Amino acid sequence: MAHEIRKVGIVGGGVIGAGWAARFVLNGIDLAIYDPDPEIERKTMAVLANARRALSRLFGQALPAEGTVTFAASIAEAVQDADFIQESLPEREDLKVRLLAEIDAAMPGHAVIGSSTSGLLPTKLQASMARPDRLVVGHPFNPVYLLPLVEVCGGDLTSQATKDIAAAVYTRIGMKVLHVRKEIDGFIADRLLEAVWREALWLINDGIATASEIDDAIRFGAGMRWSFMGTFLVYRLAGGEDGMRHFLHQFGPSMEWPWTKLIGPKLTDELIETITHQSDEQADGVDLRTFEKLRDDCLVDLTHALERNNFAAGAVARAHRARLGGAAAANGPALGDGRLLTISTPVEPEWIDYNEHLTEWAYLKLFGDATDVVLTRIGAGPDYVAAGHSWYTVETHLRHLGQARLGEPVEVRTRVLAADGKRLHLFHEMVSAAQNAVIATAEHMLVHVDAQAEKSAPAPQAMQDMAKALVAGQAHLPPPQGIGRQISMPG
Amino acid sequence: MAHEIRKVGIVGGGVIGAGWAARFVLNGIDLAIYDPDPEIERKTMAVLANARRALSRLFGQALPAEGTVTFAASIAEAVQDADFIQESLPEREDLKVRLLAEIDAAMPGHAVIGSSTSGLLPTKLQASMARPDRLVVGHPFNPVYLLPLVEVCGGDLTSQATKDIAAAVYTRIGMKVLHVRKEIDGFIADRLLEAVWREALWLINDGIATASEIDDAIRFGAGMRWSFMGTFLVYRLAGGEDGMRHFLHQFGPSMEWPWTKLIGPKLTDELIETITHQSDEQADGVDLRTFEKLRDDCLVDLTHALERNNFAAGAVARAHRARLGGAAAANGPALGDGRLLTISTPVEPEWIDYNEHLTEWAYLKLFGDATDVVLTRIGAGPDYVAAGHSWYTVETHLRHLGQARLGEPVEVRTRVLAADGKRLHLFHEMVSAAQNAVIATAEHMLVHVDAQAEKSAPAPQAMQDMAKALVAGQAHLPPPQGIGRQISMPG
Repeated sequence: MAHEIRKVGIVGGGVIGAGWAARFVLNGIDLAIYDPDPEIERKTMAVLANARRALSRLFGQALPAEGTVTFAASIAEAVQDADFIQESLPEREDLKVRLLAEIDAAMPGHAVIGSSTSGLLPTKLQASMARPDRLVVGHPFNPVYLLPLVEVCGGDLTSQATKDIAAAVYTRIGMKVLHVRKEIDGFIADRLLEAVWREALWLINDGIATASEIDDAIRFGAGMRWSFMGTFLVYRLAGGEDGMRHFLHQFGPSMEWPWTKLIGPKLTDELIETITHQSDEQADGVDLRTFEKLRDDCLVDLTHALERNNFAAGAVARAHRARLGGAAAANGPALGDGRLLTISTPVEPEWIDYNEHLTEWAYLKLFGDATDVVLTRIGAGPDYVAAGHSWYTVETHLRHLGQARLGEPVEVRTRVLAADGKRLHLFHEMVSAAQNAVIATAEHMLVHVDAQAEKSAPAPQAMQDMAKALVAGQAHLPPPQGIGRQISMPG
Repeated sequence: MAHEIRKVGIVGGGVIGAGWAARFVLNGIDLAIYDPDPEIERKTMAVLANARRALSRLFGQALPAEGTVTFAASIAEAVQDADFIQESLPEREDLKVRLLAEIDAAMPGHAVIGSSTSGLLPTKLQASMARPDRLVVGHPFNPVYLLPLVEVCGGDLTSQATKDIAAAVYTRIGMKVLHVRKEIDGFIADRLLEAVWREALWLINDGIATASEIDDAIRFGAGMRWSFMGTFLVYRLAGGEDGMRHFLHQFGPSMEWPWTKLIGPKLTDELIETITHQSDEQADGVDLRTFEKLRDDCLVDLTHALERNNFAAGAVARAHRARLGGAAAANGPALGDGRLLTISTPVEPEWIDYNEHLTEWAYLKLFGDATDVVLTRIGAGPDYVAAGHSWYTVETHLRHLGQARLGEPVEVRTRVLAADGKRLHLFHEMVSAAQNAVIATAEHMLVHVDAQAEKSAPAPQAMQDMAKALVAGQAHLPPPQGIGRQISMPG
């Protein structure tokens, strides 16, 4: 784009202004920020620290060098050399009108202003500006540095170039632009948020449910779907093989039920036609089954994501996993010949590379899980670790002899080659039954440690005995192929 | 619980009934299902196949052996030996009343019925039952086998024991029970869903936004938060350091704005007090910063989860990552002495074990990423792989010499030890600057392959030359410690 962004001016530094500042800076753009609050620097830097942590987790090394932050002493100083200005003043029309005119007067001729207003009309906001064509609404959502949505809405006098520039700037910093084509109070997203909020207030007002119950009603159900599909795509799926029109016709009568007392529009044939048509456009020829798989994949990954945080639906899944684990542990892992069947699983989507092969680190994850099975079996499971001792892997040798593809069942068969008071020598083979082949091997040396002291220590006698019993039970087997190897270039 | 669930009867086998069937069966419970649809078997098995795939991804090996599915020829046959019955008939009160009485007459004396109704009142549904105390609403959300929420609501004649049994059954199959204390039309969750739906219908009716735009307004913004925090906790955070009461007072005036024309209750001092108090109870003493970190962690993990599916906010993040990658690649990775600085990152939460140490497989992930940096540098990056050739790691030797903790910055420094037409011999050291120590090393042998033919092939001359230039540039360095090692037990 012709409009290169070297510097941004931020006017208004509350939760939203500081969120914008963090998003710009962490995407490598310098900025100046103005807010009369004497604590502006402390507050901005606190938000920036949160955002730095979050975006580092999200994008890692892909992030560019940070932009610089300057705290300006006036609006004029913040905007005088800015290519783009983001205004996040309090939601008072009179205040915004006055200060937008001030920004306009002080900014360079090529600059564009995005206003963070969540509900005021840009046509009214640009009323006192000398260059009203330069103002557009760019309405973000909290936390601004993580949520991608920004509503871009022009007023009567906003130029197309201004809208294009704002959209390009927001895209440049990783956002998803939603063009609001008709200027209405509340734009689009806040209309929907307000509807939930009004209903939630009624539910509390009428003593039906508490704040916490209402939140649970959202986050364990529809909220999970809403994080990746909106209402219409969700209802399209609910219509099953008969699709959106069927759903709307089925839904029609319930719109007349007493609990829809805050009345919606009548579902006329015309409105049904309009929505059905828009839903078809949205689906763009993708069939129901494909969407269902996508929905389920997203829900699974989302649940895993929340499980990592032990929160909301993730806490439910974690508790259920523990509950299920109790039942699964009853299964015995020994193979007929004394080896242990330590892992049996299909190759999961998380473990594959761009070629749909099991990826390098995932081999070690599976072999590591296999090692944990052995450790649990000799009494060194999670409880033992929690109590302060553990077995650490100090050396690993991997050989890759084949490939496994997405969904292919693989097993790990484990040999306990040797054990003494402090050491455990393991050899795992990963087998594809479908290929009837060993696709990888792992040889590990583990040392028993006192985790507090961070040094090696003898294992308890009972544990040594259990490990030695496993070695003895496998002693009749020939040494595995590939042990004791070293890496070298052929001469 | 005293009420053990050996067998479940499912009456009504649409999208919801089949979803229930899948959830029960995959959690190890046998069931019989009745629906007059002649295609009931095909449809149920299709949903079960979807659910099996999804739950295998979600819980993996923790899942118990599947229960069995029987297709019954009548309601009586489906429920006669069931410990628990889930009714998912069409949402017609007259039909449900009639068939619930039929189920009641045929089921064992100890059985309990959960009705999936999304809006009908249990007091009305139990009207014709001989044992009305045995009916409770258990209202799920689609897809039933993945979304944890179930609303449990009794009618006037429902016994406490029935509610307790239903809650225990639902918990047993991994669900989150929301007890609806007051029997109202639409219960709690659907009241909120309907509010969004009504507003969405108005937005389309008035030509403001399309179905697709409305969905985007949800899924790129508030929907992401709603997947783990409900409306009240989100607004509590929006209140910043001043909390919920401040937010409510600030919000009060906007409830009078013209775009809130579907009027909410007046925010009286009393209602503000009630909500503030409930919000405090919900927060349970956890402070704002802690919630903000949790919110951000969930959003990051959720975004990663969606990125894996290249969908919704995940597609936005993926595009942005690619965009950022272009900029980051401009940085040169060479260290002063000819070694390559291939990785520089803090230890991320995804990579740690229960002790907050960098976990075993994560070492190989980082070393693998370091290898990719070398490959990109010699012209064997993603484009080259996409074109059909690649370097495969055939052998790896890892040594663990220390530990790295959550958040600790680590670097990987890479030696290219040798290269010929088909082979590349790499040695990585992982260094903690804070500890001034090498905490792990990885030695790799890679082979150049024709991925289509799945066999080794000579690398292009230019690539060989680039690899050899890297070897030559490091030839002045002494051989790294620990190369060519083999694993063995001391004598």
